[in-house]
Amino acid sequence: MPGNTFGTIFKITSFGESHGVAIGVVIDGCPAGLDIDIEFIQKQLDRRRPGQSSITTQRNEDDQVQILSGVFENKSTGAPIALLINNKDQKSQDYERFKDVYRPSHADFTYDQKYGFRDYRGGGRSSARETATRVAAGAIAMQLLKHQNVTINAFVSQVGTVTLDNPYQQLDFDAIDSNLVRCPDKETAAKMISLIERVRSEGDSVGGVITCVIKNCPIGLGEPVFDKLHADFGKAMLSINAVKGFEIGSGFAAASMRGSEHNDAFQKDGDKVVTSSNNSGGIQGGISNGQDIYFRVAFKPVATIAISQETVNSSGEETTLEGKGRHDPCVVPRAVPIVEAMAALVLADHWLRSKAGRM
Amino acid sequence: MPGNTFGTIFKITSFGESHGVAIGVVIDGCPAGLDIDIEFIQKQLDRRRPGQSSITTQRNEDDQVQILSGVFENKSTGAPIALLINNKDQKSQDYERFKDVYRPSHADFTYDQKYGFRDYRGGGRSSARETATRVAAGAIAMQLLKHQNVTINAFVSQVGTVTLDNPYQQLDFDAIDSNLVRCPDKETAAKMISLIERVRSEGDSVGGVITCVIKNCPIGLGEPVFDKLHADFGKAMLSINAVKGFEIGSGFAAASMRGSEHNDAFQKDGDKVVTSSNNSGGIQGGISNGQDIYFRVAFKPVATIAISQETVNSSGEETTLEGKGRHDPCVVPRAVPIVEAMAALVLADHWLRSKAGRM
Amino acid sequence: MPGNTFGTIFKITSFGESHGVAIGVVIDGCPAGLDIDIEFIQKQLDRRRPGQSSITTQRNEDDQVQILSGVFENKSTGAPIALLINNKDQKSQDYERFKDVYRPSHADFTYDQKYGFRDYRGGGRSSARETATRVAAGAIAMQLLKHQNVTINAFVSQVGTVTLDNPYQQLDFDAIDSNLVRCPDKETAAKMISLIERVRSEGDSVGGVITCVIKNCPIGLGEPVFDKLHADFGKAMLSINAVKGFEIGSGFAAASMRGSEHNDAFQKDGDKVVTSSNNSGGIQGGISNGQDIYFRVAFKPVATIAISQETVNSSGEETTLEGKGRHDPCVVPRAVPIVEAMAALVLADHWLRSKAGRM
Amino acid sequence: MPGNTFGTIFKITSFGESHGVAIGVVIDGCPAGLDIDIEFIQKQLDRRRPGQSSITTQRNEDDQVQILSGVFENKSTGAPIALLINNKDQKSQDYERFKDVYRPSHADFTYDQKYGFRDYRGGGRSSARETATRVAAGAIAMQLLKHQNVTINAFVSQVGTVTLDNPYQQLDFDAIDSNLVRCPDKETAAKMISLIERVRSEGDSVGGVITCVIKNCPIGLGEPVFDKLHADFGKAMLSINAVKGFEIGSGFAAASMRGSEHNDAFQKDGDKVVTSSNNSGGIQGGISNGQDIYFRVAFKPVATIAISQETVNSSGEETTLEGKGRHDPCVVPRAVPIVEAMAALVLADHWLRSKAGRM
Repeated sequence: MPGNTFGTIFKITSFGESHGVAIGVVIDGCPAGLDIDIEFIQKQLDRRRPGQSSITTQRNEDDQVQILSGVFENKSTGAPIALLINNKDQKSQDYERFKDVYRPSHADFTYDQKYGFRDYRGGGRSSARETATRVAAGAIAMQLLKHQNVTINAFVSQVGTVTLDNPYQQLDFDAIDSNLVRCPDKETAAKMISLIERVRSEGDSVGGVITCVIKNCPIGLGEPVFDKLHADFGKAMLSINAVKGFEIGSGFAAASMRGSEHNDAFQKDGDKVVTSSNNSGGIQGGISNGQDIYFRVAFKPVATIAISQETVNSSGEETTLEGKGRHDPCVVPRAVPIVEAMAALVLADHWLRSKAGRM
Repeated sequence: MPGNTFGTIFKITSFGESHGVAIGVVIDGCPAGLDIDIEFIQKQLDRRRPGQSSITTQRNEDDQVQILSGVFENKSTGAPIALLINNKDQKSQDYERFKDVYRPSHADFTYDQKYGFRDYRGGGRSSARETATRVAAGAIAMQLLKHQNVTINAFVSQVGTVTLDNPYQQLDFDAIDSNLVRCPDKETAAKMISLIERVRSEGDSVGGVITCVIKNCPIGLGEPVFDKLHADFGKAMLSINAVKGFEIGSGFAAASMRGSEHNDAFQKDGDKVVTSSNNSGGIQGGISNGQDIYFRVAFKPVATIAISQETVNSSGEETTLEGKGRHDPCVVPRAVPIVEAMAALVLADHWLRSKAGRM
Repeated sequence: MPGNTFGTIFKITSFGESHGVAIGVVIDGCPAGLDIDIEFIQKQLDRRRPGQSSITTQRNEDDQVQILSGVFENKSTGAPIALLINNKDQKSQDYERFKDVYRPSHADFTYDQKYGFRDYRGGGRSSARETATRVAAGAIAMQLLKHQNVTINAFVSQVGTVTLDNPYQQLDFDAIDSNLVRCPDKETAAKMISLIERVRSEGDSVGGVITCVIKNCPIGLGEPVFDKLHADFGKAMLSINAVKGFEIGSGFAAASMRGSEHNDAFQKDGDKVVTSSNNSGGIQGGISNGQDIYFRVAFKPVATIAISQETVNSSGEETTLEGKGRHDPCVVPRAVPIVEAMAALVLADHWLRSKAGRM
Repeated sequence: MPGNTFGTIFKITSFGESHGVAIGVVIDGCPAGLDIDIEFIQKQLDRRRPGQSSITTQRNEDDQVQILSGVFENKSTGAPIALLINNKDQKSQDYERFKDVYRPSHADFTYDQKYGFRDYRGGGRSSARETATRVAAGAIAMQLLKHQNVTINAFVSQVGTVTLDNPYQQLDFDAIDSNLVRCPDKETAAKMISLIERVRSEGDSVGGVITCVIKNCPIGLGEPVFDKLHADFGKAMLSINAVKGFEIGSGFAAASMRGSEHNDAFQKDGDKVVTSSNNSGGIQGGISNGQDIYFRVAFKPVATIAISQETVNSSGEETTLEGKGRHDPCVVPRAVPIVEAMAALVLADHWLRSKAGRM
């Protein structure tokens, strides 16, 4: 069974390779009657787009989205919404030299082993270019969630050893897009940018962490027992290229804590039941409890580097790979809209799922 | 859409509440002709069973498994395999006092909000008792994987602030079950046990980390792009009660690393292509590459504690909850077979999925 | 991918063999808060039960249903509802002689070929005993549909060459269960019973047709384009043992008709839009239009007969099979509750599906 | 949950409206390494295309298919295969007059009721134009089945009251496409064509039946108990626009038969186990037995006619609809490749499903 579909009711099916004709996504299950703002979709794609700033890859991908179906007079009709992004910058010749060489920590070797051969042009299906379709579909999920007043903000909280340690409550989310690295703290952002520039000049790459905060999530989303809300967030994030870790609420720090310290006491805030702390990260028993949901996503450094590396080729001979090309020194600034999109897709699906849960 | 089914081809559907008649699981998709060893299933259940040692809850659950269908003359027939575990220790009266009180960091409040009411006896469906069905089903998945020589070993690598820092390659997995805490390092195990005993005596609980190592995984398991192998491991682990974090291979540490340091160089080992390091954790592009798969799972401290806590009741009044009852001071020793079971379920499913992937 | 699950939101997973320990079904997706009447479930099972009258098999199956989970204080909790029926009449020895012989038009040969071997006791998983679980699950779906005032009535409209030709509008559905054959027309029923008795005395069996009529179906159920409401009815009915044909509304007769004759003109009935005729059978474009839904299901004669038959054994030798045992001479009277149950399962699922279709 | 996906492993997701930008389909689950012949896909589309002959609609749809992804150097890569057909003949103005009027026996009313509004241009998503994507996807399924030597032939066996009564064994399938109506018997074809021409001249339409014959189906396809092979064929066929009935093997005629007459005796043919008759239609217990599979599909007359009809408009007023436009007087000749395509999709999926069924 293939794996190019995500979600159950708000369900997306993605297609397309880095250097094929086009990439795209079909959204099946968007409720009828939703206002669809194509400019908002394009805006999100522009935030993910390569070549958008001096610290990203200089590949220039235009990424103009087109709606093929499912929208009539600017409203969703209930029919599947197909979104298409034509591939423009198809310099396949750049990639001929990777045809027979397995790039370290890329998917070249595993694709060859799994499928018997591979579309080697720019990584083919394994390329992160595929994430553009997630951003496009996620932008429609966001329009659905806006009706519930849900807000989703992701930001860069770590690049290499530079970390943003302030609690998210002290940050100004409006400042996230005010700098190239999408870190809402100006000073930390400057350090991150400076680190990325140094790494790039060395022909190397560096990892990072994205934090995501969701406010106003309706109470009751998430399905026991396997489709707990945070389990679906985890899968969504871990399916993004280069992600190696996910933690929600207290996360790995919970392992060192006592129950008396970790438990979130219930209390009243006017008529509402709230919690005095939020180690749960807004989810209890797999179900949203109305508090802020927040989680952290760890990205490894991009595998494509300019530094020469040892490897083997498809004939099984050891060889050396000389890097070149227009890679991202650090993927996390461009991954911010991807994290937000995947979060929106999970929430939109669970919101629709919750509608059938109760008499 | 409900969430009590896990997997796509090797697919399990779990049912049952803590204090209902029985819990059970239906496995649909186990290939016909597999030898089924019911004693092995029972043995795994015994490893998860409450009351098994002095550092777990003293609730005594017998957890005798019964095969209702799908097995004939000790072989799977291709029909669904239903496994049943009758509930014996149904002291519902213990739980009457929780009927109207929301226990902090439990699912009482969210279930009530989601469903309008709840089966309050022992946590009902939200109880970790449900994980017994995962262990039972996972034991059948393990029997399937044994044909591929796959081995799965999980162990406790952290309890509170006591950590096992040795690389897994230096550990003796045969020693895992030799102590109560399921930590393969004797000295660390002793410290963990001592910590758990202290925590229990204080009426408190403590978190921990389980590490899981999979050897001999066939190359080529995992489905681009959403059902990457590690994304499915992540979801599987995060769906276990009390889990707050998941990381694979280099995990969160990858965020601080450079690409030149993180990339796993390919090299030859006889005829085989191997990698010189394994920051990828055995998975590249979401597909297993034949190297060891290893990941870490963070558990929060058990929410049930004997210490008195502030909370609210279902009428919305603030109140105090006096703990009592037979809780686990630390869940991780008993969670080891659950982690292994979920890992086996993911692998069995992906192994069957891979069969249809190629001409 | 296995096939023991039916439905998408109101989703059932069935298990169990004719002569195993038990048969059962897990319903995942029943909304929380539904009143569950176990006596109604039992009553439907009793209508399907073998041995209920002189014209059915004399095998006596008790078929007492037990609720294992998902119901608390007589209400569905939102957790999976598991229903169990223990097997009592397990005369496996009767079936030893079928171990190596392929009964004509049974599934013995195909199961052996598909799975490599089979549970030969009483047909194992291929036995129509499995349909009891459909009836039990369908009885819960009916309780859900009762809230929408939906009524589902099936009846026998043909046995062999005896046909009931009156339009269903002229029939008294309350009379369906007033005779052994479940035909609402007294005189036709008498002829059918007489035919079945003759067929039984000859050691033979005979086919028949069941008509099903659904009233008060909400407008708007059914999902374009593959999950049209009548396509899902068709699959549901064709999955019942011995069914060979399905037609909705005008059915096969439509092939001979002109559009001008077949089209159902819209007109007003007070405030409501209705149709002047109903060749569509209550479904247009795959979506219910509020008119009566009606369809017909054709059953072949039961394959088990007392008359001696030519066949081959599992060693590939030609042989003769002497029939014996307690078979049904005509399956349709007992299939009436099965048809109703499958109709209810389709409708309950589509009713829940429709909830997420629109802003 | 939406309904635009068909299949489980060989899974297609269709999108597009009659008068939108394009229609298309994503095939997820085609095994890697299959030779893809785009000309064969185009050839099947041409067989379905409007305007292909004097007895079909004179709308001229070009229906040029384009492969967007999943194929590299003429082989499937294991990635999703997206096929796109741009809409060319978008005379939306023709349809403005249908905006507020419910065409009898069309989906206008039910779509409006279900979704709150509709894309009224040419039927939007409910248009049979959607079936082009089934034909395109089915053509790839056929290329997969060719490796198993499976052949699928559908033909017109009835138009109005003109029926082809010869058993299919006596027909020359090579003659199917030799006439406009796709009936392999020359004389019957002439009568059918003559009837269709008369019906067209009267501004009316007429129904018909398509018979489909599958040879060399591997033994063992079909999944107990709900996904019986013929249940999936039934759903596939009933999901095609205008289909009202489906029968397999003996079909509705089985209702009048005795078991002794209907049972298919097993016998030897050299080393192979075959049956002396084939009332089962090649499927027993829901699983293919190696004999020919054959079934019949009933189509109602096309709802669009030139004759004036009574109806209501969306304001709920009774009105008269004057037909006009370029409709098909009889849909069955163009539906032959659709039936074949859906049959191929069912078989390809079940063939892949069967791969995981046995150790």
